[in-house]
Amino acid sequence: MNRARFELTPVGVVESPLTERESAPKQGDEGSPDAWLVLEPDVLDALDGIEAGDEVIVLTWLDRAHRDVLRVHPRGDPQRPSQGVFSTRSPDRPNPIGLHRVEIAAIEGRRVRVRHLEALDGTPILDLKPVLSASLSER
Amino acid sequence: MNRARFELTPVGVVESPLTERESAPKQGDEGSPDAWLVLEPDVLDALDGIEAGDEVIVLTWLDRAHRDVLRVHPRGDPQRPSQGVFSTRSPDRPNPIGLHRVEIAAIEGRRVRVRHLEALDGTPILDLKPVLSASLSER
Repeated sequence: MNRARFELTPVGVVESPLTERESAPKQGDEGSPDAWLVLEPDVLDALDGIEAGDEVIVLTWLDRAHRDVLRVHPRGDPQRPSQGVFSTRSPDRPNPIGLHRVEIAAIEGRRVRVRHLEALDGTPILDLKPVLSASLSER
Repeated sequence: MNRARFELTPVGVVESPLTERESAPKQGDEGSPDAWLVLEPDVLDALDGIEAGDEVIVLTWLDRAHRDVLRVHPRGDPQRPSQGVFSTRSPDRPNPIGLHRVEIAAIEGRRVRVRHLEALDGTPILDLKPVLSASLSER
């Protein structure tokens, strides 16, 4: 394998009561606690325009994932037949980028409190993006 | 700045009639053509379980983006006040990862035809993920 490679630089880190992969919910709407996005001071300008109540997609680097896994049993259930990871939300995949749809609860300087984030404590944050409205005029 | 860095390895590349950033639609539902996802042979196992008709999220590396940009005018319109990039879908941002919701039109070996992809020809592909159903039983 001889391919181009690209380098990510985290823009922040997740602070969460979730500390172990085994205890994390499979999806954010399955009992995730509130958490904090703690942003690097030098990217704070990028946050302008985000307010409490907004829904955003947080992209994370799932640093405890296994990148050499191409097939998994969905939701870790060995009773279910294995599938390719591109057809699942398994953290184990060649480029373990997590997508998390959350609601902004509060912004305090470089600390952003969010609801329903299933990422583990210490997970690096790569990006935040607005959830696109179906209405073009609201983009 | 002294932070951890993470390395991405593309799992494929976009083939599209879109070749210039200026001509690309701002979002996939604004007149994007069909395109192909051409996957690396060694990740084909990860595709098992994806079928024509499925809706998936394609993650790409927006390799023509400017990573040092923290504020932009939304949709490139100088009449609109600038905002932080985290509140926009601008390709210019610290980690230029693109999210594209597409429909699978056909799968032919390692070539996957998709509808409504606004990515440029040659854009590296990082990941595919299923669109999550609201119903847990369908995950």
